[in-house]
Amino acid sequence: MANAPSNAILYDKIRAVEWENGRLKLIDQRLLPGKFEHLYLDHLPESAKAITDMVVRGAPAIGVTAAYAVVLAARDRYKENPNGWHKAIQADLDLLAEARPTAVNLRWAVEHMRGLINAGIPGNPLMRLLSEAQRIHADDIAANRRMGELGAALIETGSGVLTHCNTGALATGGYGTALGVVRAGYAAGRIKSVYADETRPWLQGARLTAWELVQEGIPATLIADSAATYLMKQGKVAWVIVGADRIAANGDTANKIGTYMTAVAARHHGVKFMVVAPTSTVDMKTPDGAAIPIETRAEAEVLGFGGTRTAPEGIQAWNPAFDITPAELIDAIVTEKGVVTKPTRDKLVAMMKSA
Amino acid sequence: MANAPSNAILYDKIRAVEWENGRLKLIDQRLLPGKFEHLYLDHLPESAKAITDMVVRGAPAIGVTAAYAVVLAARDRYKENPNGWHKAIQADLDLLAEARPTAVNLRWAVEHMRGLINAGIPGNPLMRLLSEAQRIHADDIAANRRMGELGAALIETGSGVLTHCNTGALATGGYGTALGVVRAGYAAGRIKSVYADETRPWLQGARLTAWELVQEGIPATLIADSAATYLMKQGKVAWVIVGADRIAANGDTANKIGTYMTAVAARHHGVKFMVVAPTSTVDMKTPDGAAIPIETRAEAEVLGFGGTRTAPEGIQAWNPAFDITPAELIDAIVTEKGVVTKPTRDKLVAMMKSA
Repeated sequence: MANAPSNAILYDKIRAVEWENGRLKLIDQRLLPGKFEHLYLDHLPESAKAITDMVVRGAPAIGVTAAYAVVLAARDRYKENPNGWHKAIQADLDLLAEARPTAVNLRWAVEHMRGLINAGIPGNPLMRLLSEAQRIHADDIAANRRMGELGAALIETGSGVLTHCNTGALATGGYGTALGVVRAGYAAGRIKSVYADETRPWLQGARLTAWELVQEGIPATLIADSAATYLMKQGKVAWVIVGADRIAANGDTANKIGTYMTAVAARHHGVKFMVVAPTSTVDMKTPDGAAIPIETRAEAEVLGFGGTRTAPEGIQAWNPAFDITPAELIDAIVTEKGVVTKPTRDKLVAMMKSA
Repeated sequence: MANAPSNAILYDKIRAVEWENGRLKLIDQRLLPGKFEHLYLDHLPESAKAITDMVVRGAPAIGVTAAYAVVLAARDRYKENPNGWHKAIQADLDLLAEARPTAVNLRWAVEHMRGLINAGIPGNPLMRLLSEAQRIHADDIAANRRMGELGAALIETGSGVLTHCNTGALATGGYGTALGVVRAGYAAGRIKSVYADETRPWLQGARLTAWELVQEGIPATLIADSAATYLMKQGKVAWVIVGADRIAANGDTANKIGTYMTAVAARHHGVKFMVVAPTSTVDMKTPDGAAIPIETRAEAEVLGFGGTRTAPEGIQAWNPAFDITPAELIDAIVTEKGVVTKPTRDKLVAMMKSA
């Protein structure tokens, strides 16, 4: 950790994804918090692999990474063939879009960049595409700041909150979605204490959320995921605040496995449940949660802990990376365009059309 | 694992607790499934420490261990002072009873042995107390067999079930409580598939339950604790089957942290919830769950695993080892004396008084 940023206001210093000297630069989140190291990528295939392997994770961060990866591919294809690059790049875009199945931000970013390419870019496309990727990145940070304000305003002064997985600067272009609300809410005095689920099997809560909160001096307590329900019983939290990997048109939300657990428990205890995600996470083409593809990851992630096998040989595991929280368990969806309470398809359509 | 029993029917070969050649012999469950090693204990204080440190765990196994530890103490105190040993041993009994706070079987066994001592044992007490400890041990196994039959009879043929923590041969005198029902139910064709929560932070499910099920060839799938709710949503389980560390007079049940999570989720999805425990776990002196002391263990258990730190320095953790499932979320309590459905104080009183 010697080379990790040591000052407060981490979210202004940490960039999970950066464009630096013509290269895509990613914090290797698999190593945090033990090691703070970057990977530098020059081509699209290795960038897609970094997404699959969870060097970078978090739906918005994956979207920003994908936008930069398209720039890398355009540079390679243009060098190979300045006239036919926009055809050659199509297979790269398809490969990239398949790097992970659930987070729609990945597909959103790829299709956005594809649209620009297909509309025609004269000459060397590097600067035009890079400019667009940087705009996507900047827009994500701005959206997070706005969602932070909107979400924090829903929380009563002095509340305890629970969050699941990591939705902070590391999971986004910067600042964070659900953790952005935590940041804004803590700064405004609305949030007094934060509980973080450790979030098995990858421990994004224990490794990443805890790291971000410690660096900023926000009082936080880590719990085993299964303790969340008992925590609510004790009246310690007023809101559960989570991010999203895809929000369907009716408000059903795919997010990290365990999110649904917290939603069911929240409803049982009268705790409110907030989903925070930019509109790039809302997929109006997906009618409901049943239509969202859920990634199943390797059994080994559940059969061990931190790379060490803990379960006996011969046992199998079920390892869905995400689950679906139905809209009826969600009290508020917060995007940069506004707050939708008790989400329905009609309300989401109206929100998406608003300025 | 070279010296682990390799044949099927594990529960007839595995004894978490044994009396062997005048010594208390415990499987060191902290090392499973990677290593199968025994600890041999000659005195009560080291036996109490083994309970505190979770060499042996599981409420019934702790009770049996405590009974044998009293035999060790009596041997030591009688050797020191054949006339005053029954007075000198009182402090040992108090120490032992405090080894862990939540499981009432520990206190039950200590007080049972104390009652015998205080009633007066002429001459060397070793054989009399050993005989009683062995009777407690045999009674626990017989109770488990009986509960296995009673619990399995509640389950429809071909069901999937979910269990939490470890309640098998390793957690009891032998055979198991909730896992005894799984054994009996699988043998009878009533249970077709078993899901096991990994059970953070100690991973009793991943390490111990998985190990027992693999050795017996019962088809089982390990899941992250937080996936249990999503599993129920998919209709994969008809029953959640758990053990207990203490059942209060009104049916409120203390069990491994996360049990309450599964109970809330079960009720939400119309899945039934069964608690399986011998009457030595029922404490009619504890009126309800609020009166059960909940052990809080070291933060380090949540901040890492197996001695390896995963969370960053500076974060704190909340680590309750147990939670309380209220009686209204329990469909059936199964003891060796019978099945109590929709438990109430009156029903438990009647069950405890029955033959």
